[in-house]
Amino acid sequence: MTTPSRRDLANAIRFLAIDAVQAANSGHPGMPMGMADIAEVLWNDYLSHNPNNPKWPNRDRFVLSNGHGSMLQYALLHLSGYDLSIDELKRFRQLDSKTPGHPENFMTPGVETTTGPLGQGFANAVGMALAEKLLAQRFNRDGHDVVDHRTWVFMGDGCLMEGISHEAASLAGTWGLGKLVAFWDDNKISIDGNTDGWFTDDTPARFEAYGWRVIRNVDGHDAVEIKTAIDTALKHGDKPTLICCRTTIGYGSPAKAGKESSHGAPLGKDEIVATRAALNWPHAEFEIPEAIYDGWRSRAAGQTREDEWNRAFAAYATQFPAEAAELSRRTAGELPQDFRAQADAYIAKLQADGPTVASRKASQMAIEAFAPLLPELVGGSADLAHSNLTLWKGSKSVASSDPNANYIYYGVREFAMTAIGNGLQLHGGFIPYDATFLVFSDYARNAVRMSALMGAHAIHVYTHDSIGLGEDGPTHQPIEHLASLRYIPDNDVWRPCDAVESAVSWRAAIERQDGPSCLIFSRQNLAHQPRNDEQVAQIARGGYVLRDSDGAPEAILIATGSEVGLATQAAERLSAEGVKVRVVSMPSSDVFDRQPADYRESVLPNAVRKRVAVEAGVSDFWRKYVGLDGAVIGIDTFGASAPAEALFPHFGFTVERVVEAVKRLG
Amino acid sequence: MTTPSRRDLANAIRFLAIDAVQAANSGHPGMPMGMADIAEVLWNDYLSHNPNNPKWPNRDRFVLSNGHGSMLQYALLHLSGYDLSIDELKRFRQLDSKTPGHPENFMTPGVETTTGPLGQGFANAVGMALAEKLLAQRFNRDGHDVVDHRTWVFMGDGCLMEGISHEAASLAGTWGLGKLVAFWDDNKISIDGNTDGWFTDDTPARFEAYGWRVIRNVDGHDAVEIKTAIDTALKHGDKPTLICCRTTIGYGSPAKAGKESSHGAPLGKDEIVATRAALNWPHAEFEIPEAIYDGWRSRAAGQTREDEWNRAFAAYATQFPAEAAELSRRTAGELPQDFRAQADAYIAKLQADGPTVASRKASQMAIEAFAPLLPELVGGSADLAHSNLTLWKGSKSVASSDPNANYIYYGVREFAMTAIGNGLQLHGGFIPYDATFLVFSDYARNAVRMSALMGAHAIHVYTHDSIGLGEDGPTHQPIEHLASLRYIPDNDVWRPCDAVESAVSWRAAIERQDGPSCLIFSRQNLAHQPRNDEQVAQIARGGYVLRDSDGAPEAILIATGSEVGLATQAAERLSAEGVKVRVVSMPSSDVFDRQPADYRESVLPNAVRKRVAVEAGVSDFWRKYVGLDGAVIGIDTFGASAPAEALFPHFGFTVERVVEAVKRLG
Repeated sequence: MTTPSRRDLANAIRFLAIDAVQAANSGHPGMPMGMADIAEVLWNDYLSHNPNNPKWPNRDRFVLSNGHGSMLQYALLHLSGYDLSIDELKRFRQLDSKTPGHPENFMTPGVETTTGPLGQGFANAVGMALAEKLLAQRFNRDGHDVVDHRTWVFMGDGCLMEGISHEAASLAGTWGLGKLVAFWDDNKISIDGNTDGWFTDDTPARFEAYGWRVIRNVDGHDAVEIKTAIDTALKHGDKPTLICCRTTIGYGSPAKAGKESSHGAPLGKDEIVATRAALNWPHAEFEIPEAIYDGWRSRAAGQTREDEWNRAFAAYATQFPAEAAELSRRTAGELPQDFRAQADAYIAKLQADGPTVASRKASQMAIEAFAPLLPELVGGSADLAHSNLTLWKGSKSVASSDPNANYIYYGVREFAMTAIGNGLQLHGGFIPYDATFLVFSDYARNAVRMSALMGAHAIHVYTHDSIGLGEDGPTHQPIEHLASLRYIPDNDVWRPCDAVESAVSWRAAIERQDGPSCLIFSRQNLAHQPRNDEQVAQIARGGYVLRDSDGAPEAILIATGSEVGLATQAAERLSAEGVKVRVVSMPSSDVFDRQPADYRESVLPNAVRKRVAVEAGVSDFWRKYVGLDGAVIGIDTFGASAPAEALFPHFGFTVERVVEAVKRLG
Repeated sequence: MTTPSRRDLANAIRFLAIDAVQAANSGHPGMPMGMADIAEVLWNDYLSHNPNNPKWPNRDRFVLSNGHGSMLQYALLHLSGYDLSIDELKRFRQLDSKTPGHPENFMTPGVETTTGPLGQGFANAVGMALAEKLLAQRFNRDGHDVVDHRTWVFMGDGCLMEGISHEAASLAGTWGLGKLVAFWDDNKISIDGNTDGWFTDDTPARFEAYGWRVIRNVDGHDAVEIKTAIDTALKHGDKPTLICCRTTIGYGSPAKAGKESSHGAPLGKDEIVATRAALNWPHAEFEIPEAIYDGWRSRAAGQTREDEWNRAFAAYATQFPAEAAELSRRTAGELPQDFRAQADAYIAKLQADGPTVASRKASQMAIEAFAPLLPELVGGSADLAHSNLTLWKGSKSVASSDPNANYIYYGVREFAMTAIGNGLQLHGGFIPYDATFLVFSDYARNAVRMSALMGAHAIHVYTHDSIGLGEDGPTHQPIEHLASLRYIPDNDVWRPCDAVESAVSWRAAIERQDGPSCLIFSRQNLAHQPRNDEQVAQIARGGYVLRDSDGAPEAILIATGSEVGLATQAAERLSAEGVKVRVVSMPSSDVFDRQPADYRESVLPNAVRKRVAVEAGVSDFWRKYVGLDGAVIGIDTFGASAPAEALFPHFGFTVERVVEAVKRLG
């Protein structure tokens, strides 16, 4: 083979995708075939990365928001020299391969984020671009641009139809993320066929309305046009850029190009033969000629790039040692060494002081205490700063060039907020927190799930956690949300009962490096609970004995959040009547369930079956602790609009009812 | 008082809002004060309604998408003569009043939909406007426009920031809903303050990009400009219209107008005094002079309108009796008389035929069987028609003028899809169904919740219901979703185990008039289960004995969907070993839980505590049936990308493991 053409290089992507999907008998060849030429130009001429080190901090970020085209990304990673062998490509979509159906950042070196749920990759990319901007304005110094990379994102019609694309694009425009470049795979085909019937937006005009630079009418199969478009995008740095690429889905397939039939199913053996002929690709399945590999290999160039950056960083470190150390610490995701000690001291003082405040206020106090120690803490709220209490004294808007910018006014955009937070975290250098009312976690729900699936160290703050929010009524009152968030795998949910538990939950969320935490806070005041040092330490175990009986308990009350106070009052009444009752505070059932069996047995002895759980949420969740023979005081209907003081008794959250429930267990 | 000015009439809204919020010491005065002039013009000069009959079918629909401004709507309803007394306004936000914190269609006559969760009211309005278009093209005849009304919607910056506004506006533009008019309350204030920092969209350009007619720069406090804008909107009927109204939040308050402080809290006594002076409103709290009432009362005019329509409808009925009867039936929400019998016959035949198909295929077969009987069934999918199997032979796109248009290509817009479906249902005349993959119910979650809260007769079809979808991997595999949907109050979830249960679940969803149903279907084939007639009848009870032991059971297996086959196989093995085991199929725990105690006891005898539940979803949900001493075979981690045949054993769903679990219970 002579020196391969750009089209030849792109065809390597096409046939790896075609062959892998055929081998798996499952997958999406159409998008990789359609976007191969764009990807080839971007990866070979522009992308600043190092296949030897997928974690090089200053690499460009590449996000495949239309993640069903995963084989495009696997082909790119394989061809350019990442640790992704041809054998892995042959095992596309098989158990434990590095090539799952959709890109998963925790499975495959070089995959920056997990995509598939449409639109979220785009929002992740906005978060990554924001992370770069914030780190650059914090750490760069004249002549020392140690943080300086771009974020590139591929997206399809599906991403653009999703509402989250609106939210994320609007914020990217407002923030002027000039190093963000998005490629729209404008192929006029979605799963139901030609998009004329359901996608008639003037997308370029829409993005201009968001303050983006839009480059229209690029032939996505013409390398020269693609290069010209990217060069234009790079010339200006003040706005994010959308490059609108007209492409043909399944490009090269004689019978299926331009048709939905190429989207989500193997081309089929005969059509693959025809496509090989049409694209002049005589090579066997999964066979890539050396000359093609030569055109793709990027390990040497990548190493040179990183070496250069390492030298530049060394020079920076010499001149700005504190900044360099801090940037390295943040990039590594390490907490400041004294964080734990300072947090513990704060918590001990809180226990001694015993403030009675709303837990949302306690949350703000915790932020106020911890954020000065953690410049990596970047957060915000979906237009509820003064309700969620997410602002603190050091808050400075990210829509500025302030080096300490750390607060995000997300506007009313819960879904993009959460996905942008995921992007900030995946970029590195940040611990993101976001906030809204608990009921509106619904709007962000799949992004919370993605935090958990990706093991993203993100913190989701949800206030106004029950009917206790009162007058706003059932549209705003969470009922099923606590249980539903707890059921997301690998998601830690905390619902603290007072200021001390609130601070512990924040400490836990900050220290939990391998997954997200949802911190659930009340609108209304919650009474401080007395504890000894051992109990204060046990909060971190998720559940503990807050108030014990004299001698072995006959009955156990289990409660969270605002209902812990109710449980302790009921316990006092019962004790006075001679009933031996223990109160277990269970701020995090997720964390409690991970404790060793003997600890769990010490808190909830198996033999004690008179158990009553109390929580202002769906009751059935608690059957896992009270069983068939216990009782739950919960709420299984929608709430109502009225002052909280009227609602709690209306829905049966009274000391009398708790007392009665224990007695009725006999 | 002389004849009141338009401003005087509008001020009545302002002070009812001000006084009610002050009395409640909670609520949102700013929006009603800002939009009062627009509302006054719309309601007094344009809105075609009849306060005597909030259910008059041909009324204009008015939707307050920025529902926190509920007092605007209550004031309008009260002033114009709906059954909403001044005493109810005085009880704003109190328990059991007709004036809850946010508008609730089930609490207040004249409220068309429940709003508060931002953006959804707008999408509901799109659904209502679509309903009008579809009914008109189905039922109107030359000279007989018996269906002919408009849909008006108020929305704020918050609605426009939400992603759902993108999805819904895009569809409204594509469908050319010319009778939909939206008013944007452009006051540049959201809860976090001036929106400059987080909402910089060129909203008029954005809506033009969706194919809307946009009327810019209307002074929202100038009745003449408002009238001119509305007249322009009414002149053309080919596109939905956005009227951009510049307004001042809290208009009239000397200290708080134009400020966030007027948004969500009482103005305060002193400021109210100042506002009364500024707006020249000398009347006492909640006092509306007769002259003002005279300017508002619409009962006589409304009755005249309805009487005229009744005459027109009578003429139509004379000429087109079948159509008139059918329109009346559909408007009343009555099923065709023979529906039950035909559905039962279909189900009986299915049980006899015993097809083994994927339950998504069984769902399509049920649609194919039932839809010809139900022209009110209007449905679609979020770009997954051929995966969800929601198309049937009679499907005709609503993006047409076909009188039988009944299929909605929603594109990749799960949230708007679901909220538009709610709007179709609330309008009347339709039973909507929507569809996506179960995992992406997350994207629509709060709209599903709103279906339930509103008691909307909507059907949500979710396919690809577990790891059984295979290769698409964990981003696409639901784990927590079954349990999470079941926990939404008043939401019926069905996960059928074969074609017969699938048909029964469809019948139940169609017959359940007072709330939504989620129908959950598999991608993969599910074996037919044998049943006698009694068992076929019992499916509708949500849980029933599918396979019983000889004599009293020692153990009970409880399963749903694809795991029922596994349970019956395990039961066979156990029976062969002499274990007396019963298999309970539980397609809907929601419905089962509503059965009388004796029926539930007959299925799950309290004394039988050796219970094993099997479901490819989170295990803890099932503790409510198996208690602390039973066992659950579920999945509490994320899934993986691999063929389904590899995944089920990988995650422990095998006959052996079920058998072992029963034996281990001793």
